[in-house]
Amino acid sequence: MSYKDIKDAALAYHEQPTPGKLSIEITKAAETQNDLSLAYSPGVAEPVRAIAEDPESAYRYTGKGNLVAVITNGSAILGLGNLGALASKPVMEGKCLLFKRFAQINSIDIEVNAESPQAFIDTVARIADSFGGINLEDIKAPECFEIERALIEKCNVPVFHDDQHGTAIVTVAGLLNALEVQGKSIDTVRIVCLGAGAAANACCKLMLSAGAHLENLTMLDSRGVIHSGRTDLNEYKAAFANETDFRTLDDAIEGADVFLGVSGANLLSAEQLKKMAPNPVVFACSNPDPEISPVVARETRGDLIMATGRSDFPNQVNNVLCFPFIFRGALDVRSKVINEEMKLAAVEAIRGLAKLPVTEAVRQAYGGEPLAFGRDYIIPKPTDERLMSVVAQAVAKAAIKTGVASLPYPEHYEPEHFEG
Amino acid sequence: MSYKDIKDAALAYHEQPTPGKLSIEITKAAETQNDLSLAYSPGVAEPVRAIAEDPESAYRYTGKGNLVAVITNGSAILGLGNLGALASKPVMEGKCLLFKRFAQINSIDIEVNAESPQAFIDTVARIADSFGGINLEDIKAPECFEIERALIEKCNVPVFHDDQHGTAIVTVAGLLNALEVQGKSIDTVRIVCLGAGAAANACCKLMLSAGAHLENLTMLDSRGVIHSGRTDLNEYKAAFANETDFRTLDDAIEGADVFLGVSGANLLSAEQLKKMAPNPVVFACSNPDPEISPVVARETRGDLIMATGRSDFPNQVNNVLCFPFIFRGALDVRSKVINEEMKLAAVEAIRGLAKLPVTEAVRQAYGGEPLAFGRDYIIPKPTDERLMSVVAQAVAKAAIKTGVASLPYPEHYEPEHFEG
Repeated sequence: MSYKDIKDAALAYHEQPTPGKLSIEITKAAETQNDLSLAYSPGVAEPVRAIAEDPESAYRYTGKGNLVAVITNGSAILGLGNLGALASKPVMEGKCLLFKRFAQINSIDIEVNAESPQAFIDTVARIADSFGGINLEDIKAPECFEIERALIEKCNVPVFHDDQHGTAIVTVAGLLNALEVQGKSIDTVRIVCLGAGAAANACCKLMLSAGAHLENLTMLDSRGVIHSGRTDLNEYKAAFANETDFRTLDDAIEGADVFLGVSGANLLSAEQLKKMAPNPVVFACSNPDPEISPVVARETRGDLIMATGRSDFPNQVNNVLCFPFIFRGALDVRSKVINEEMKLAAVEAIRGLAKLPVTEAVRQAYGGEPLAFGRDYIIPKPTDERLMSVVAQAVAKAAIKTGVASLPYPEHYEPEHFEG
Repeated sequence: MSYKDIKDAALAYHEQPTPGKLSIEITKAAETQNDLSLAYSPGVAEPVRAIAEDPESAYRYTGKGNLVAVITNGSAILGLGNLGALASKPVMEGKCLLFKRFAQINSIDIEVNAESPQAFIDTVARIADSFGGINLEDIKAPECFEIERALIEKCNVPVFHDDQHGTAIVTVAGLLNALEVQGKSIDTVRIVCLGAGAAANACCKLMLSAGAHLENLTMLDSRGVIHSGRTDLNEYKAAFANETDFRTLDDAIEGADVFLGVSGANLLSAEQLKKMAPNPVVFACSNPDPEISPVVARETRGDLIMATGRSDFPNQVNNVLCFPFIFRGALDVRSKVINEEMKLAAVEAIRGLAKLPVTEAVRQAYGGEPLAFGRDYIIPKPTDERLMSVVAQAVAKAAIKTGVASLPYPEHYEPEHFEG
């Protein structure tokens, strides 16, 4: 489809036959007077009394336990910037659609017109009990870091900023697999991260958790390399400041093993790519236009492994591989948080799935490509139906292991596809 | 069913087979990669841009226009009191169920843990743009008055406190019909209102709008008659203070034409009922136990017309006759408020429907009773399917007439059943 065609199709999709993408439906009998006397007055008084006595019974008698709120202030909508809360509603409804489509999670969008980060925090904290989990979305850095930290502290349900951690989990899963294929190890590679926003911060933190060394990591913002001599850094950037002589991307890219781009279109040149170490790994995740065109990159370096955010090239870094299932796992064992161990469990589960033979359905959906673990297949496809059980189960198990779950490992979980 | 049976049935209803009563479903194609590229990135950027340019197009491209939030602070849950926000969730989900069941409105519950009325107001105002309308629920008096007033001022969508206005609309509709049957007129009857909370306040205000005279109205709170000599009245009670010698219910009931009870069980005695004027009207709306038993009342006064909140006696005052349809009408013409004229239009529509012959389906559902307009049928039944078109259309028309609607009278509306 041409751009004009996609534009028209997207508007028609959202408008016809009814506006939007979601409906709220009744799951119980609600026809007769008797039905309604159970659903509402007088019968409803019983679950009310039960919850007043024991708040945990809200999970028994209401939809809370399978309900995730997708909440934003509209300050960083996709790549479009701060367009205000209301304008983000199609994206938030889209996220809700993905939660349902991929993990059977009921999800509702809340757009918050907040005059300050604190107002946003207060608002979300006050409504949080209505839900079983909170997915923060499209909130700009650096406010997103403080917002997420405060809400994790205030809320009794898991709070997860997908633009940070969903991106990081899928990126690191792909990156670790790419390094494996290239015969390299996370604890020795030199990494350049172009970008210092929400996704960059989370990706770099998770790389450190996965074994990378801070002194091997060079992060760049719009002013160049983040180093210990800079006095203009907020605390989030300062955490990644090394003592180094690197000042520019040109300096840092020389001999680097990994380039992670979470910045903007065409910011990595073919000349710069040429200067990387042998068998380099390039994750050019700017969307829709990557830091370097995959076609140019492949022409420039035959020894490259490359991933992008695009579905029309191999190795798509797509958050939908993670967020539905990390919440599925967290909800299924009623975890009160999504901790680092659960994130790393999701990383390993996604990595592992890419190493299993793909199903015939997935192969067919991708035009019969072989999709065997290797250079052009280091990340599973979003339509791989095993994602649900593999990732959710790994996450649930990690929650139990780290003592943050309130329920045992669910009986209905399938036997595992592999040891995660 | 015995009380124990109802209790067990209600808990089972809420728990099995899945907790709660609602699910959130996808209304558009969401299977293929192409579907998802329209529902989410990159296609979703188009409706985002459209809404950023023109906020009204949120009604075109998102579910906002058919989405009502049911919002509470849990401070006055049913007759159970202040049990906290979370404990109210089964009631709020029940309200959402009724919105869908009766008026095909998508509705989601939000329970707000607010430390003050101002915190509640701030919270709801910040999230209001997410929805096409806001139904406030189970908020205690007198805070509910200030909360509703502030939110009507701050929000661009209709805000309606159903415990006040839904109750008032159905009560006044029934009351006007009862007076008609008794051969009396609202502008000359003497009225006693026992109770001074949210519902009492709204009922009395709407009675005044419908033609009652303040000097003919005696309101009582737990300390007795509200009169101009009292110094302990908040502004909401003070608005109903008359110069009068009445001090007790015994004083006020003597010769009164109308008794409206929105107070508590068994607060009107048979002796007091005997003292009312000939052909009295008694609305004993305390639930589940009315201010006077309908059986006792009927034995005491053969010339009585009586209504209660109970479904097992004639003339049930039930909010479900109003709130789904007043929102349906308001949403259908995109009214920015629900004003007094729209409320009075709903009153007249409900009144009018009680005068039409009932449908065979309704008659059958009520055991073949005649249900002809008169002493035992002054209010339509909740299962009367004509409520939807009759009330919604009257409300929409009133919104257009008073200049608060953004859309014209909907083409799909049916020919009217009667002139409202």
